[in-house]
Amino acid sequence: MPLLLGAAGGVDFARFFTVLAVMLVAAKLAGEALERLGQPAVMGELIAGILLGAGFLKVIPVGPEDPLTPVFRLLAEVGVVVLLFEIGLETDLRAMLRVGAAATAVAVVGVTVPFVLGFLYWWSGVHGYEHTVSSPLTTAIYVGAALTATSVGITGRVLKDLQVLHSLEARLILGAAVIDDVLGLVILSVVSGLAAGTAFSVHGVLRILGVAVAFLFVALWIGLRLAPRLFGLLDRMRVRGVLVVFAFAFLLLLCVLAERAGTALIIGAFAAGLILSETNQFDLIEGQIKPIADIFTPIFFMSIGAAVDPRVWNPFEPGGHQTLAIGGTLFAIAVIGKLASGWAVPWRHFNRLAVGVGMAPRGEVGLIFAQIGLTAGILSNRLFSAILLVVIATTLVTPPLLQGALRRGATLDADSVP
Amino acid sequence: MPLLLGAAGGVDFARFFTVLAVMLVAAKLAGEALERLGQPAVMGELIAGILLGAGFLKVIPVGPEDPLTPVFRLLAEVGVVVLLFEIGLETDLRAMLRVGAAATAVAVVGVTVPFVLGFLYWWSGVHGYEHTVSSPLTTAIYVGAALTATSVGITGRVLKDLQVLHSLEARLILGAAVIDDVLGLVILSVVSGLAAGTAFSVHGVLRILGVAVAFLFVALWIGLRLAPRLFGLLDRMRVRGVLVVFAFAFLLLLCVLAERAGTALIIGAFAAGLILSETNQFDLIEGQIKPIADIFTPIFFMSIGAAVDPRVWNPFEPGGHQTLAIGGTLFAIAVIGKLASGWAVPWRHFNRLAVGVGMAPRGEVGLIFAQIGLTAGILSNRLFSAILLVVIATTLVTPPLLQGALRRGATLDADSVP
Repeated sequence: MPLLLGAAGGVDFARFFTVLAVMLVAAKLAGEALERLGQPAVMGELIAGILLGAGFLKVIPVGPEDPLTPVFRLLAEVGVVVLLFEIGLETDLRAMLRVGAAATAVAVVGVTVPFVLGFLYWWSGVHGYEHTVSSPLTTAIYVGAALTATSVGITGRVLKDLQVLHSLEARLILGAAVIDDVLGLVILSVVSGLAAGTAFSVHGVLRILGVAVAFLFVALWIGLRLAPRLFGLLDRMRVRGVLVVFAFAFLLLLCVLAERAGTALIIGAFAAGLILSETNQFDLIEGQIKPIADIFTPIFFMSIGAAVDPRVWNPFEPGGHQTLAIGGTLFAIAVIGKLASGWAVPWRHFNRLAVGVGMAPRGEVGLIFAQIGLTAGILSNRLFSAILLVVIATTLVTPPLLQGALRRGATLDADSVP
Repeated sequence: MPLLLGAAGGVDFARFFTVLAVMLVAAKLAGEALERLGQPAVMGELIAGILLGAGFLKVIPVGPEDPLTPVFRLLAEVGVVVLLFEIGLETDLRAMLRVGAAATAVAVVGVTVPFVLGFLYWWSGVHGYEHTVSSPLTTAIYVGAALTATSVGITGRVLKDLQVLHSLEARLILGAAVIDDVLGLVILSVVSGLAAGTAFSVHGVLRILGVAVAFLFVALWIGLRLAPRLFGLLDRMRVRGVLVVFAFAFLLLLCVLAERAGTALIIGAFAAGLILSETNQFDLIEGQIKPIADIFTPIFFMSIGAAVDPRVWNPFEPGGHQTLAIGGTLFAIAVIGKLASGWAVPWRHFNRLAVGVGMAPRGEVGLIFAQIGLTAGILSNRLFSAILLVVIATTLVTPPLLQGALRRGATLDADSVP
């Protein structure tokens, strides 16, 4: 009778099991419902997360005082990391490198246009909002910066669900999203510096940029040479589950290395997938990692939804209409700015709209920006809520829009174009 | 760039990922090494847990002040629950019910003999130890009670690794272990009552016993009728991963129901496996739950090892030899008492030794008993350490002994005997 006590050692097993079971069932039922409505399943998971989250049913723990909050945050992180690993496994590295220059153009335009538009919108003062928390210049930079991120999780999941990961557009989006992550790190370090009151330094910015790029190259260069041999040794082992356990551990370690190198965990996860796609056991790994992704990935998408409290946008609350007006304008800027990135590439005959839409979701990345801004005292509660609206709206709007864009303009076979 | 901050929101992703990866790799390497030495892989995981645990390398978090301790406790619990679910899936319910009376006899003897021997050993005073923390009678009851538990995790894993889950002996052991869990709950409630100073009540004991038995019958009766239809509906769903997610959620919910009904989580897990083994998608569930078990189960066995600090048995410390002497005697009583259970069944021609050895490991169950006794002030630190020695020694000794016993006396086909 192991751990027959429901709460042995202060850990509430029964509640953890209940929340996990309810989340997983809700995720699948909502995903199924949305898919039957012709929408991507991930949208159902996001909506189920909102319903079970802080705003409504309060099933999913999000509060800092709840002992289960860090547990679900860690499981959600495993979820996004396994998702990126799966996407990496299914990505053809050589084909992606061929679109490298184009992806860089998409990322740079997709970061620059929303930043400039967002900055100008706030700096010009047309919003008519008296923001007294910090200086207008700092606030304008922060508003612009908060619009630059791209959450590859949402887009990657939609591309995967629609089975178009091998299209040219998918490679462009994924490549650009990885580069966007690198740029996002640079921007975040700058705005965090602003928040902390430290001076801007070109040297510091270049260092972060260099480390992130160097990590990706070194990891891929060493990994592609070492991993196939290392995983070849596993064929000689006899204990059960060796392959999936070592693949999973390899994924975790590359995430940690990425983080230690000063870049994002999920860049490590994507690199791990790219590397292991070159091993002999590639298809076995893919098959065995799938049930693990099935369990963990919904936790990630539901956690994004769970953090949302839609009541802050209630137009009947005092000032609520202003939050909605600012949020709506920023949302338009956010979408238009990323759509522009689809036109950053000079090629003809490819689905520009799909690429632009695919770069649009801010997801959990935008949440981090908004949270830091609020904590640092750069954003007022109202401006924070407006940016939150942008994050949620771009995230919720992307799955159906991307699916629509991909269906209208047929995706091209990746090997046919550039 | 989701969660690019290494410790966003106070959660240290990088450390969590590192510890998890190191644990998984160590588990598989140690399991491989032990298997090549002709020992069961689970013994390697236990030893790797001891090496990475509190006593030596301190990689696995166990301290109450470490924020990752509850996370790994929850993951370990998922591990044991998935293991029992797998064992339930592979168990033939009808064949097990046929050995029901015999399994009850094994469980009752396996609980009674160690209790009586342990009680007499302490009550008689032959140990020569001046135990001043609580009254000799209370202590003697507690020492006896601490020897009654059976950890089905260890034995189940060895039986599974050796692929003899379908043997008569395996069914006897698993059936007896489930009944032992029910008896263990009763005993724990009595000794917890003693610890809290409340009076012993026959009514209370019968209530716990009745609830546990009723839960098993009701869960199986309803589950076996409902689950095949419910899981039949899943065939009509389109989203990915429906089957494994619903099977996993079903497992979690049955664990919670078991706990709410006042019985052990793992009885619910075993029942969930038994029930789903009757669905049409039985083999698909088994195949998809396997990678999940591969990841979670080693965490459970390593956590058992991690809690151990072998230095308390150092004979060169003052009084250390007395701890070893008492612990050694209790260990002999613990093993002999459970061995006797193999002779509780009047059948001829079956492997009594294997059944007796299979009931021997105390595992995490014994740890809970010891911990409660220490916290309640019934056990001195020395007596606590001695019981800990029994827990560890019976756990470590079982895998090789059980493998040996099963190899010497051939296991019989379960359908040939009773």
